[in-house]
Order: sequence, then C-alpha cells, then structure tokens
Amino acid sequence: MKLQSYALGEWYTASTAGLILKHAINGQDFAEISSDGLDFQAVLEYARQVGGSNLRKYTFHQRALMLKALGNYLIERKEQLYTCSKATGATRTDSWIDIEGGISTMLVFASKGRRELPNSNVYLDGGQEQISRNGSFTAQHIYTPIMGVAVQINAFNFPCWGMLEKLAPTILAGVPSIVKPASQTAYLTELLVKMIIESKILPAGALQLVCGSTGNLLAHLTCQDAISFTGSAWTGQKLKQHPNIIANSVRFYMEADSLNCSILGSDVQPGTPTFDLYIKEVVREMTVKAGQKCTAIRRSIVPTDRLEAVAAALKERLSKIQVGDPDQEGVKMGALAGLEQRADVRERIAELAKQNEILFGDMHHVNVLGANNDTGAFLSPMVLACKDARNTNAHDVEAFGPVTTLIPYSSDEEAVELAALGKGSLVASVATANKVVARNLALGIAPYHGRVLVLDEKCAKESTGHGSPLAHLIHGGPGRAGGSEEMGGVRGVKHYMQRTAVQGSPDMLTAVAGVWMQGAERNVDGVHPFRKTFDELEVGDAVITEQRTISLADIEAFAELSGDKFYAHMDQAAAQRNPFFEDRVAHGYFLVSLAAGLFVDPSEGPVLANYGLDNLRFSAPVYAGDTLQVQFTCKQKTNRETENYGEVRWDTAIVNQEGALVAHYDVLTLVAKQQGGETK
Amino acid sequence: MKLQSYALGEWYTASTAGLILKHAINGQDFAEISSDGLDFQAVLEYARQVGGSNLRKYTFHQRALMLKALGNYLIERKEQLYTCSKATGATRTDSWIDIEGGISTMLVFASKGRRELPNSNVYLDGGQEQISRNGSFTAQHIYTPIMGVAVQINAFNFPCWGMLEKLAPTILAGVPSIVKPASQTAYLTELLVKMIIESKILPAGALQLVCGSTGNLLAHLTCQDAISFTGSAWTGQKLKQHPNIIANSVRFYMEADSLNCSILGSDVQPGTPTFDLYIKEVVREMTVKAGQKCTAIRRSIVPTDRLEAVAAALKERLSKIQVGDPDQEGVKMGALAGLEQRADVRERIAELAKQNEILFGDMHHVNVLGANNDTGAFLSPMVLACKDARNTNAHDVEAFGPVTTLIPYSSDEEAVELAALGKGSLVASVATANKVVARNLALGIAPYHGRVLVLDEKCAKESTGHGSPLAHLIHGGPGRAGGSEEMGGVRGVKHYMQRTAVQGSPDMLTAVAGVWMQGAERNVDGVHPFRKTFDELEVGDAVITEQRTISLADIEAFAELSGDKFYAHMDQAAAQRNPFFEDRVAHGYFLVSLAAGLFVDPSEGPVLANYGLDNLRFSAPVYAGDTLQVQFTCKQKTNRETENYGEVRWDTAIVNQEGALVAHYDVLTLVAKQQGGETK
Repeated sequence: MKLQSYALGEWYTASTAGLILKHAINGQDFAEISSDGLDFQAVLEYARQVGGSNLRKYTFHQRALMLKALGNYLIERKEQLYTCSKATGATRTDSWIDIEGGISTMLVFASKGRRELPNSNVYLDGGQEQISRNGSFTAQHIYTPIMGVAVQINAFNFPCWGMLEKLAPTILAGVPSIVKPASQTAYLTELLVKMIIESKILPAGALQLVCGSTGNLLAHLTCQDAISFTGSAWTGQKLKQHPNIIANSVRFYMEADSLNCSILGSDVQPGTPTFDLYIKEVVREMTVKAGQKCTAIRRSIVPTDRLEAVAAALKERLSKIQVGDPDQEGVKMGALAGLEQRADVRERIAELAKQNEILFGDMHHVNVLGANNDTGAFLSPMVLACKDARNTNAHDVEAFGPVTTLIPYSSDEEAVELAALGKGSLVASVATANKVVARNLALGIAPYHGRVLVLDEKCAKESTGHGSPLAHLIHGGPGRAGGSEEMGGVRGVKHYMQRTAVQGSPDMLTAVAGVWMQGAERNVDGVHPFRKTFDELEVGDAVITEQRTISLADIEAFAELSGDKFYAHMDQAAAQRNPFFEDRVAHGYFLVSLAAGLFVDPSEGPVLANYGLDNLRFSAPVYAGDTLQVQFTCKQKTNRETENYGEVRWDTAIVNQEGALVAHYDVLTLVAKQQGGETK
Repeated sequence: MKLQSYALGEWYTASTAGLILKHAINGQDFAEISSDGLDFQAVLEYARQVGGSNLRKYTFHQRALMLKALGNYLIERKEQLYTCSKATGATRTDSWIDIEGGISTMLVFASKGRRELPNSNVYLDGGQEQISRNGSFTAQHIYTPIMGVAVQINAFNFPCWGMLEKLAPTILAGVPSIVKPASQTAYLTELLVKMIIESKILPAGALQLVCGSTGNLLAHLTCQDAISFTGSAWTGQKLKQHPNIIANSVRFYMEADSLNCSILGSDVQPGTPTFDLYIKEVVREMTVKAGQKCTAIRRSIVPTDRLEAVAAALKERLSKIQVGDPDQEGVKMGALAGLEQRADVRERIAELAKQNEILFGDMHHVNVLGANNDTGAFLSPMVLACKDARNTNAHDVEAFGPVTTLIPYSSDEEAVELAALGKGSLVASVATANKVVARNLALGIAPYHGRVLVLDEKCAKESTGHGSPLAHLIHGGPGRAGGSEEMGGVRGVKHYMQRTAVQGSPDMLTAVAGVWMQGAERNVDGVHPFRKTFDELEVGDAVITEQRTISLADIEAFAELSGDKFYAHMDQAAAQRNPFFEDRVAHGYFLVSLAAGLFVDPSEGPVLANYGLDNLRFSAPVYAGDTLQVQFTCKQKTNRETENYGEVRWDTAIVNQEGALVAHYDVLTLVAKQQGGETK
C-alpha cells in the first residue's frame, strides 16, 4: 500500500519508491510512504488562496457545525479506523483513545464554538477599554483569523487524535491546515483524511495531507502561518530554529514528551483507597499505548517510607498484565509502534539502569501471547527506583515506553522540588485525601506544568485520568514540554488568530467590531425594538424610555412582595449608619424590575424570552423621590443557525433625574427571526 | 560619570574602563558604561531566591499598591529625570512621553491590578469547566507566577518608559526583574533605578540593573525565566536563537521596530478636517523623538490621486518644524540619540532613495538652532514617494528617524495588501470619516497588526495618536514586529505567569483555587452568613433557605409594581403560543427578587450593600404553584486593602420543587471587616 498525499484538491502518489512501514505486531511490510515530487510552495498557496478564503466565508458557528457534522460522519465509520489501527500495535482501548477520543475532541470544539464564540468572524477579547476621559476615544481588543496556514506536524503515537485535536481549533478559527503525520503510523491518518475528504463537509483547501517529508515547506512560511508540532523535544527544537521561522516570527507551538510525574501525598498510607487509586493510575499510565504517551507517568514520587509498599503493589499489578497481540483474548498491553522504537526505549532503560535499580521487568524478555517477540515490538513494563532523589537521571532520561522510576521524598517542599527537576512537564498528578496537601503540592508544582490532576476518592469514578488531555483544558507545558499550549477550548482557537487592539471613536469601533460600543450613536427611530424581528433588528436600535419616580410606598411594597426586608431598605436609622447610604435605599432588584417595566413593550411579538442578565453593577444609590429612566440599546446579535430565533444582548443603563448612571447591565433575550415565527 | 549596576542588593562599579557615551546635542563625553566583573549567575540566583520569594509573599492587590506608591514617588522627582533626559537629544515633549508616559503606565497597572485581579496569589482563568456528567470530576484553569526572573532588554529610545512598562506587569505578577538598558541612554535608566531603590518601596531582589553587557546571563536561564526584548529585529532574532533559550523554551517576548503604516481613507478629500488630521498625525509621528519610535509611521499609504496633495501638505507643515537644541525657544525637533544613529539613518535613506524619490528634506543639511550640526546628531525630516507601490523597498527598509515614504493605492483591497507587505507591524492607522471604509480597512489589516487606530473627527480631540502604546492595550505585532505582545492590562501580567489546568473533585479544586467550586461541600453551620464579618466568613459558608410557593397573584402583583406586563407573564394564550412556555411564566426579575427575600437576613449587620450581579441565567420556566428555594454560598472573598470592608461573591442557585435549577448567578456584596465596622 503506497500512501497518498492530498494536495491542491487531489490525491497524489509519489512516483519514486518510499520508506517501508512495518506492522507493529507481526513485523511484516504494511505500507510505503513518500511525498517526493510535491510542490510545497504550491500546497501552501492553495491553502492560503483557496482554503483560507473559503473558510473565512463562514462564521464561527457555521464552522462549528461543520465540525459537528464531521464528528458524526466519522463516528459512523469508526470500525474501519479500529481495524487499521491494529497495525500500530494498539489494543482496542488504546485505539479508543486515539479514534473516539479524537472524534469527541472535535465534537467538544463543535459545541464550545457555538456556546463560547460569537456567530460572526470577529471575536471580541475582553470589554471595551476606557482610554479617554470623555469617552470619545475608546478601544476594543479583537481577534481575526490569520491569513495563512496551520502546518501540523504530528507524532506517531496518536495518528487520529493528534490530527483531530489540532484540526478542530484551526477550522473553528477559519484557518486551513496542512497535516504531516509521523511516517510510522501515517496509514491511519491517511485513512482518516480519506474519510474527511469523502464527506465533502469541509470546503476546498481547508485540509491537505503530506504523507512523507515536508521538503522545503518551512522555508516558505510567512508571518501569517503557524506550526503546531508534537513530537520529541530534539526535533521540535531543531524546527523552531529554522531561519525562516525565526526571521518571520512564525507562530510555533510545540508539545514535546516530558518527564511527567505523579506524587503520592504524604497523607496516603498503604491499604487506603487513595493508595490503591495511585497504584492503579501509575499502572494504567505505564501500560496504555504501551507507555507511548507524551503524558505518561515517568516519575513516581512517593514518600520515602512508602517506596517499598508502592513497589510491591506495582509489581503485583504489573505481573498480571498480559502482553501480546491485542486480538488475543486476555491481552492487556500491545506492542510499541515498531522495532526501532523498542530499540530506542531499551537504550534509555539501560541508561536509567546506570543510576537506578530495576525493581520489575526485564527489558529483553517478556511473555508474549499470540505473537512473536522477535518480529513484534513487545516490551515488558519496567519499574525502577532511585536512591538519591535529587541526583538521578530519571529527571532527564525519557524512555518512551512502559517505564516508570520511583523517587522518594521526605517533605511536601521536597516533592515540589523533585517535580520541578523535570524542567517543565505536560502534566502531573497528586494522589491525596488531604486538602492542605492538595493545595501545597498543586500550587507548588503548577508553575512547572500545563495540567495538574488531584486524584482522590471523590473524583476517581468520573476521573479521565492523569494521561488524558481534554479538549476543554489546555494541553502543553513549559520548558522541556515545549513552552506552548493547545486546545483549552477557545484558548486553542486563538492560537490561529491575531489579537489586535482597535482604537477610535465609539461609532467607528461599533462599525469595526459589529457590536455596539458605549458612547456610540443610538438609532431611536420611533419603532420600539421589541416590535422588530431578529432579522430586522440592527445593532444600535434603541429605546429611551419614559421616566418613573419611585416612592417610599414602592420600596415598601417591593419589600413586602419579594420578602427582602434588608435593613438598608427598611430602617432609616440603620440605613443612615451604613457608610454608603444617606437614607432608606431602593432595592437593586427593584431597580432592574422597574427598568423592565419601562423598557418592555408588552404585547405579543418577536421577543420570546429573557434568558439572563450579565455584568450588573449598581453605581449610585436610589432613594424615594428619585426619577429613573432607561436607555436600552441593541448591543449584539447572535444568530442561532439551527433555530428560528436568535440571541440579542441589550445594553441597559438606568439613569436618575440628574443624568447619573445608577445601574448598568446587559439584558439577554431570544428574538424570533420572523414575525409570527414566535409561535409554536 | 561611570554608570553603576545594581546587583545582589548593592550598587556595583566596574573597575575596568568602559564604553564612552556622548551627549546627543553637544557631542561631549557624558558617561561611561561597563558591567565587567559582574557574576551573572549570582545575579540570577539572587533574583530567584530573594526577589521572587519576597514578591510572592504579597497578593496582587498589595503589589498593585506598591506600583501606585512607586508611581507617586517618581512623579514627585520627575524634573531630575527631565534634566538628565536632555542628553538623549529629546525635547520636553519627547521626554514627557518617556518619563510621565512611563510613570502613568505604571499607575494604570496599579489601578487595573486592583480592579481586574483578585486579591490573592492565584488568578483564575475562565470559569469552572464541566468535564464529567455528574460533576464529581471538574476543572479550573489557574495562573501562578513563574518561579524565575524577567530579564528586560530595552531599547535606547525610551530609557524610562521602556523599563517601567515592563517592570509594572512583572511586579504585579510577582516576578523579579533584571533590567538591561541599551548602553547609549543607560544613564537615564540608571537615574530612574536609583530613585526606585532609594524609595525602598519594592522588596529586596525585586529589581536589579545591568549597565553594560549581560555577559553569559542568557546561558543560565531556565524554563521559569522570561526575556522581554525591545530593539532591532536583527538583535532580537539573534538572542531568540540562543541555544539555552531554545533548549529550555525560555519565554521570549520581542518587540521589534516595524514598518508601520498610516492609510488615508479613499473617502478623504483635501480640504476636509479628516485630511488635516491625517497630515498632522504623519508629521507628529515623523518629528516626535525625531522619528526614533518603533511605532512611527514609516509608510504613508494614500489614494493615488491624492499623493500630490498629501506631499504638498506635508512639505508645508514640515518646513515649519525648527530643528535644534531643545533648550532653545521655538525648537520643535531635537537630535537623534547619537552620531552613529544618524549615520545609520542616512545609510537607510540612501537605500530608500534608490527606489523612491525624495520629495522633502536633505539628509546632509538642516538648519539647526543653538547647536552644531557636526557634533550634534541632527537630521532633517525626510519625505519620499514611490512610483511602484508593490515593488518598493519602502516595505522593507526602515530608517529609524524622521522619515516616511508615500505609497499610492487605488482600492481598499490594494491598501490592505500594501499594508501587509510590511510583513507584520506594531501599529497601523486609518484616517476616514466613512464607517464602511473603516470596517474594510481595519478588519483587513488587523491580522498583520497588534494595534489599529481609526482616526476621525469624533475621536481626534481625545486621541492619544498612532504612535502611543497604552498600558490598557496590547503593544506588539506579528512577524517583523516580533510576534509578541506586551502590556494590555492583565494580558501583559499573564506573560509572567504559568497557566495550568487543575482537575479534581470540587472540594479539592476549592482548596487549591481558594474559590468555591460548583459541587463542593457547603458549610451550613446554623449561623446565617449575613451575620458573619468579612474576616469571619469562609469560602463555602452557605444558607439553604426556606421555600416559597408562588401564585398567580404574586405574578400579577409583581407586574403591577414593576410595570412589566410582558405578554408571557400576563396573557395565558399568548404565553402558550410562545415556544418556551406552557403557561403564564413568572418574571425572571421576580425570581431574583424573591430569592433575595429568601436569602437575606434582614437585620443590621456586617453586610453593607449589594453592588451587583453576574452571569444570571434562567434555565427553566417558573409557573404559579411552583415552590422555590435558594442555595446561597460564599464563593469568593476579595479583601480591599485600603477599606474596612471587602467584596464577597455569592453563588446563588434557585431550585424548584423538583430540585431542578431555575436560575443561577453570582450576587456581589460589600461586607464589613469587623462587627460594628459597618457604621459611618
């Protein structure tokens, strides 16, 4: 099987011979890979000219719906992927992480994209900035998609997930991708890309695939492109220094394998549930994907007096792990991705063994079920232990396989110091039932990690575990782990957008941002905005309401009806003792209630419901005798693609008889798209 | 005057001879600079061990108050700085930008730090992430200060501002700084640091100064350190590739000079106010600091048919700019920072002149008032113009002086393309009175810029101008501009913190974050939390209220009192036609009002005021006959350092008789620190 690339809208097969890829279980030739003859400058230009402009025609929500459709399309075809995945040496569980984990990551982005991004092309970052005294000069940070390409260079261990977790945020951002899978398992990525292309869900140019070398591609990147690299620190660092990447400040996101640790809390004694959770977690991280995970637990940091107990418990569990062909019943751990990988891991274990004692496993021998250990890349789980916690190469040498080293500690401070000796990791976990231990360790190690898991009995049942990055959370870590982030919901989407501070008059900023800015013109055309459908409404449409003077009787009636008889509303003397009030003050809840009485146009119409309220601040007290008026302005429209209504956010300002602002907030409503569209 | 470094808590003078720095106006020897003999590894360790641990003892608000005190201390001593600044060739206005601009930047951070950061050591990023079905496993992103050093490498043009805009966010983050000013104007930075040290406001180790070379400092940086570089792209790129910086993924923030442009909108005709604003802006950017600003307008992009009019207007204005010794009355533009600078700028002008026509100025001759053009670094403002807009080196060659090149365009699309030929800039401006032009140009150029100014008549009076970075806004740009950001309020503080996703049970996350998480235990100890002072209250203290059944009479009474007679509350048939309701629905405002009636403990006590409400969402309709109850829980405490009360945020959940959530929000109150502390 000669793997194909997908470039310039077509499948491409290199005419020259390529690298032969072998089956991880049986060692037979499985595929051949080469990108010889591809014109990488043309591939880049196609992505920019065709893919970028196609994707940018859609809004964030429309792109999120593409991801949803794509996720659903792929999940229906997952069994094909599972079958192909066997060649990588993976068990069904390993493949589940890669395949369904990848698809569900895409679906989380599909969902977050519609909940957390606006339905437009511009993402507003933070609120309007007040940068002038009178407000005639103001500012807003915005994000717009970069005008280039996302180049994804992926690792061999997760050929599906590795691509999908990067593809989802780039599609959402509106940026085309060129995917370069690691050669070793590129056949699975190729199959996945074939499905995606067949689905016709993504617009032309949004996705290209390079099976084989990327040739001179990096030399043609510009300041509008981004590289997202997952793999070894050595390769990542080499690419990061490419003269063109440096010269153009090409965005470079790097996720490198790191020496992740898991700490057994000083409170946790053998025989307790938390101790058992810890043992299970370490064993799971050692054996899932045969330890070929950038997040696996390489260092198990345990209290000195419990090192033996931990070692004994690990040995007991690990001795029950059957290694072999995952197609055989009872096999719990498959093969490494290939014989080269195994040779490399063995080399590292030998290096570790110079300074650490091997407590479990023999790297040259393991019982294998249903396969041949000479042609398949099998390896025994290995547990080592160090004597001198600070001076062991276990903090530096990474064996990318089923290997962990036990490291003893004697105080919380020392545990934090030892964790830090990894020089920056993707993830760490802490098993503890004690809140003080959790706080000390988690905050102590946080600066060295992108993710920290606190494992206890309460969360264990639902915990996704130490090793699982989640689409909701950032994945990445400082230092050795690469110094970057991926995913984290909208955070990951921003990596493919440029943040820009836009300054100007409120009217101009409203025009640029598409959202009404404080101080901008209001359109008060005589038609109450509650009479306009979602489609008719425009940002800036407003009503300046009638006035209402409130009385002490109102305040008392409101207290009676709501039940809120707080002293500041009811007791003049107590109110006057309060540092903020001069008299009995009107309830804040009464103000927002009577404001609705002023701004609502009551008869049946396109406005369907008030679904919430944001950022309410009371800025001046209101007393009996004060006269209030409301300025109610359409601030932002969010079309709901799949509904016959949209969301409308209204800027709501309550002012008193002196024109002073007494309350300011956003009212959130649902508004029908057509007149009569409101009915069931 | 031999400049000193400030290292390990002491002033240090090199024993060897240093580089001689000359006065920019009179060319005389002014200072001598050398850092010979400094032990940079010791300097780093001192910052980490003493400075970092000292700073981290304080909260964000306490550090913000340090900045405020420091800003006020410096502003009282500003005249000393102005006097010293004259040696740099600066006019009073130029120095004002550097000195008072720098101090006010620090004061903005002091203010934003207290308004936008919590009063603790951990900054929560975004909300709690729901990552499990039942909520027993949850997550929160946090920021903690990096455990290392911020190394600031600054440019010669703003010896005060350049240091203060970087120092403010690092102090706020809790990270110590080592400042290395550009040698040429280091005397002014040294004076500023002397004042700061004398003030004794910052704790020991928080600030060190290296006057002269940084020697082998970069080789000792770790994954917990950060470099913030401002200067030429060439130097920045060289440093960024330092093997140790690559190997440890040392955070590297780079602000490089860029070929910023200003676009005259296609709608703007000569003789209009917007045209005049454009001319004024270009002239100002050319002449302030004699054009030695990384944000200056190097490319003036104008409609082809208005190039001549722009050239004529610029010539007229520039011919009135008197160059000379700023101490002389009438002098509007001073000298470049030195003769070497001038030689360099002349070289670049000669390069530009190969492809662009010189319309104004003679780089070898200029009338100088009160100084000698042979010993002072004076240069005439220079205007050039290109013929072939796309093929001119004006997009590549930067003359870091009073120089701009006019570039013609014929459509909005072309203007955007030309702007992009700068390959990434710090800032661009657009002068227009037309909203469509503003939107097209601003969004078109946004991906290539960190800041975009839309200049019109409405904002002109309060505008701070094209060239002024503001503490509120990000400063930085993609590509040639360095690909980084600085400032932008809290955004800039985060550069010196590590973001970490923390996962675990709600109880453990509450312990780690110090903020009550959804699903965590509540302390319902029988004492109503309204009876507890700010100091007595603890996160998790809660009240589960009595129940209240609401009636149609309640709904009608509320409608009457508020005036809100929206059909969904009042008209059964219309409510039933509404897609969200089955019957007349209770007002959302009534729900939050009666919730207060349930959770408020009314008698006089430490709770002083309700100052707002956040993130209110109604999740299920409430009808007459429904019975409601409130879960009211202390979520977050924010001590106000300078007041006798603090802010308390309460998680507020309204549930119905079936236990379903009907509304969820945060109530914001002010609570006195002591019993009786509430009275005036």
